[in-house]
Amino acid sequence: MIVVKVGGGTSLNIDAVVADIVALRARGTDLLLVHGGAQTTNAVAEALGHPAQFVTSETGHTSRRTDRRTLEIFEMVYCGQLNKMWVEKLQVKGINAVGLSGLDGRIFEGTRKDTLRIRVDGRRMVMRDDWTGTVDKVNADLLKTLIGAGYFPVLTPPGSSTAGEAINVDGDRAAAMVAGAFNADALVILTDQVGLLKQFPDEATLISAIPKAQADRLMEFAEGRMKKKVMGAVEAIAEGVGKVIFADGRVDEPISRALAGAGTHIS
Amino acid sequence: MIVVKVGGGTSLNIDAVVADIVALRARGTDLLLVHGGAQTTNAVAEALGHPAQFVTSETGHTSRRTDRRTLEIFEMVYCGQLNKMWVEKLQVKGINAVGLSGLDGRIFEGTRKDTLRIRVDGRRMVMRDDWTGTVDKVNADLLKTLIGAGYFPVLTPPGSSTAGEAINVDGDRAAAMVAGAFNADALVILTDQVGLLKQFPDEATLISAIPKAQADRLMEFAEGRMKKKVMGAVEAIAEGVGKVIFADGRVDEPISRALAGAGTHIS
Repeated sequence: MIVVKVGGGTSLNIDAVVADIVALRARGTDLLLVHGGAQTTNAVAEALGHPAQFVTSETGHTSRRTDRRTLEIFEMVYCGQLNKMWVEKLQVKGINAVGLSGLDGRIFEGTRKDTLRIRVDGRRMVMRDDWTGTVDKVNADLLKTLIGAGYFPVLTPPGSSTAGEAINVDGDRAAAMVAGAFNADALVILTDQVGLLKQFPDEATLISAIPKAQADRLMEFAEGRMKKKVMGAVEAIAEGVGKVIFADGRVDEPISRALAGAGTHIS
Repeated sequence: MIVVKVGGGTSLNIDAVVADIVALRARGTDLLLVHGGAQTTNAVAEALGHPAQFVTSETGHTSRRTDRRTLEIFEMVYCGQLNKMWVEKLQVKGINAVGLSGLDGRIFEGTRKDTLRIRVDGRRMVMRDDWTGTVDKVNADLLKTLIGAGYFPVLTPPGSSTAGEAINVDGDRAAAMVAGAFNADALVILTDQVGLLKQFPDEATLISAIPKAQADRLMEFAEGRMKKKVMGAVEAIAEGVGKVIFADGRVDEPISRALAGAGTHIS
């Protein structure tokens, strides 16, 4: 089993990902797809007059302020616009895709953090009524039922709190947990970079391979949105996933190339 | 099996529908939910600067002009905002809901009509590049698999063309086809009226019961949005559904009341 995480970056070659999934499945590879949608959500939130806000926690992590209206817009984009786009593209190519959020059947279940300790202009503040959380477990039974019946699950945030509320969860961490739940051979994280770079944005400094035991060290090189992806990778390794690959999602055959050696391999 | 269709009307009592589903399931009733979202879609389309347009076919039927952007907004509202709202409300009440569109696993499969013959100001015109269609069959296997595994499916348009493309399909007809596929005991259609009225909007003229063989006659009384609902009812009867009930979705225990005799019973 290979778990593929595709970010929401607008420069990704979605049709190439779809074509590669079709080709890999034809060759007998079992796959599962998890997608994001952050960039599109920002654009739609802006258009609907509720622009995205980001907050920085006391520990220095940046996350989306998810009030109730933001959660609704998040669901419109991730579960409506983008999830059904992926499902349609796969269905047209003959793959019997079924799109689900982590809320459905509580596939991504975790803890809601309704109160966040944040810093604003250096001052400590408490932010309440937030709908953010962390995936603690993957309910793989539903996924196994679907796969066993011949369907191809296409997964996306949000997740479900233990109380059944929708929560904004990190898609990379969710994909890592899915890969862990399936003891996947590989988690392939497709982004708009050739892989992890020692000196961003110099592609000549691509880190092509690093042993699992040193995965933690990647945190020094990751910058911006890559930080959470590297955290997801470290978690996937901890969950027993065979290999994590960061690879370019802008090229033809992005998954096959990654499996053949392109990008950054943590193994 | 009871199939419940809830329209997208903003005056419906959604929490009462959810509470009633919980109560009925606790009493051992098998249920399936299909929901719409037309009114909310109109509001979001307006907010996003792509307001809804309606066209009248040569045969006099009114339908939504569904260009590619409209289809995308339709999916955002039906599959994102509203489907996940239903799933969350059910999950919070302990029902393991799984929200799916008719595109997922091609649950609602049918024929795309990419060319519509319409009338504009009395003139005949041909409208191309439309993403509308008709549900010809329900792929009940996926639903049976989910129900058998203990999940509660929450279904919504769009459907899938035979080529796997997303198509805007009528939710009432889709619900009728689902009820037919399950040989349901009843299809309960909840709207913002007490039932079908002989003289709209006079509630004293409620048609409380009519034999199946005369269901066609209801078309004379149906007006506006009710027309397609009555067509759905006639189709459900033709598909072998035991009973179709039009009932008030604004009240407490709307499904239980309908099953106990409220509304218009076609049986």
